[in-house]
Amino acid sequence: MKKLINGVDSVVPDALRGLAAAHPGLRVDVDNQIVLRASGARPGKVGLVSGGGSGHEPLHAGFVGYGMLDAACPGEIFTSPVPDQMIAASEAVNGGAGVLHIVKNYTGDVLNFEMAAELCAEEGVEVASVLVDDDVAVQDSLYTAGRRGTGATLFVEKIAGAMAETGAPLAEVTRVAEAVDARSRSFGVALSACTTPAAGKPTFDLKDTEVELGIGIHGEPGRARSAMRGARELVHTAMDAIDEDMPVSGDNLVMVNGMGGTPLIELYIAFAEVSDYLAGKGARAARSLVGNYVTSLDMQGFSITVCRLDDELTRLWDAPVETPGLRWGR
Amino acid sequence: MKKLINGVDSVVPDALRGLAAAHPGLRVDVDNQIVLRASGARPGKVGLVSGGGSGHEPLHAGFVGYGMLDAACPGEIFTSPVPDQMIAASEAVNGGAGVLHIVKNYTGDVLNFEMAAELCAEEGVEVASVLVDDDVAVQDSLYTAGRRGTGATLFVEKIAGAMAETGAPLAEVTRVAEAVDARSRSFGVALSACTTPAAGKPTFDLKDTEVELGIGIHGEPGRARSAMRGARELVHTAMDAIDEDMPVSGDNLVMVNGMGGTPLIELYIAFAEVSDYLAGKGARAARSLVGNYVTSLDMQGFSITVCRLDDELTRLWDAPVETPGLRWGR
Repeated sequence: MKKLINGVDSVVPDALRGLAAAHPGLRVDVDNQIVLRASGARPGKVGLVSGGGSGHEPLHAGFVGYGMLDAACPGEIFTSPVPDQMIAASEAVNGGAGVLHIVKNYTGDVLNFEMAAELCAEEGVEVASVLVDDDVAVQDSLYTAGRRGTGATLFVEKIAGAMAETGAPLAEVTRVAEAVDARSRSFGVALSACTTPAAGKPTFDLKDTEVELGIGIHGEPGRARSAMRGARELVHTAMDAIDEDMPVSGDNLVMVNGMGGTPLIELYIAFAEVSDYLAGKGARAARSLVGNYVTSLDMQGFSITVCRLDDELTRLWDAPVETPGLRWGR
Repeated sequence: MKKLINGVDSVVPDALRGLAAAHPGLRVDVDNQIVLRASGARPGKVGLVSGGGSGHEPLHAGFVGYGMLDAACPGEIFTSPVPDQMIAASEAVNGGAGVLHIVKNYTGDVLNFEMAAELCAEEGVEVASVLVDDDVAVQDSLYTAGRRGTGATLFVEKIAGAMAETGAPLAEVTRVAEAVDARSRSFGVALSACTTPAAGKPTFDLKDTEVELGIGIHGEPGRARSAMRGARELVHTAMDAIDEDMPVSGDNLVMVNGMGGTPLIELYIAFAEVSDYLAGKGARAARSLVGNYVTSLDMQGFSITVCRLDDELTRLWDAPVETPGLRWGR
């Protein structure tokens, strides 16, 4: 294992120090592993809090800032953050209009965010939660009852974040967050496993001639292992799985996401195939992202997330955003 | 070799099709491998053209758009584009105020851009050129006489691009482009080699316990091979090389760039060390980028580029930009 780290035990705090140094718009509590906007809570604005295991950067800490999250709670690598982080973050971002927890569907994250929400309520902080479960690959998985939450998390954070900036009440921000999840589907393909610093070896074995179809973002097994194929075939497998679950049509927000170790030039090749696939169904990618957004350390591979747009979601997607990982229009 | 491609021969056109599908603000001539702004040439504005081998994405095509390049000419993987591409691009972006060629110092690129400039001049298109040669690792290298051009290319494109948007004349745009190159230094470290689709195997051998210090962006040899070390030690090696060549001081624009296969969390760990190093010299990163910007396919590793800022360069860096790879303030 060769990793650009100082030690296995200091990966997350060392990275948070770097995040703080690079982004003066963030306030980073390295000791407690909480990332906030430097500008603080805005009175009357719903606060958005997310979090999850580290190793998926820029998710979540890279999406803290105007138009997206108010706070992120990074756990250790591929490990849920603890309720104390979530409570401290929720209290810090509460501007009196309540707080929305955006939770990827992994059992540890769900339990800890539930506990945090209960304790926040006892402290008088109103909390709503949205569960992101967009991955159509498998119904239950390692670490997860039900579908896993993956790429749609970014869409929920961006669109709910834009709604929160308008001063909308908690119920409205929650409604739009749930709408994004309900309209989004994802499917991932691994060309290689990832290596966590603590394990020091790949999380699973994959032959040089194989791919894992339906991979999870921690390397959890997918639907099947198959022979390596061309980009077109792999994209069709992913899009067919999405289309079977929610037939694609109309205007969509589409992300071709890199797992961390795949070159951008290959992600664009995949996007061309996604675009052609959609056209074949009379649909299109009206908005798109191509790049590394919801990663799995050094894994090679990609995921596709499709969100069926309507006018409201399109407008909120287009709204200004200013975070380390996503920035436009401001 | 596992790559997300349709075939070794169609990598660049397939990726350009994806670029076109994802970014309606670009006009992509897939057959001739030229990427332009969809808005066309602006009368009275200096046109900026760059280009080079593919495999370094988002460089260069990902930096076409408002506030940066007017056109990019991607060659095949790690192969210079040809003069015909450069001439067609230059003619397309010429708004009557001349064209600046931004050329990374590789012998093939230099010769082809020189030939293109001569032919443009014969056609009545005024062309100036800036040579980017920021890599302090080695004096001469595979493919290069003199220093290689690497990370500073992005800085030149951004800052000269902002100057061009003001309507400044060609001499002014050229002056600021040269100033950025003169004030910038880079050094790269490889943790792994990259694999070109055509070769199908790593471009060089690197043991599991080794790193290449001073790596080039095509996998060219650097200064030395050393034992793998921690992030702090590797960053110090890179920063010492930069500091020996141009002592760091004051306010700097600093990029910690991923080579394509390194997780973002590790790049932030490196940035923390760069920030500490600068503080130890009484300097700081007043502006920064952390991410994959000037890549080498799937190579694992990083490079650091430091540009000593002044008020003019800072203002131009901060100016609005809207490209696939860099976007803010508009």
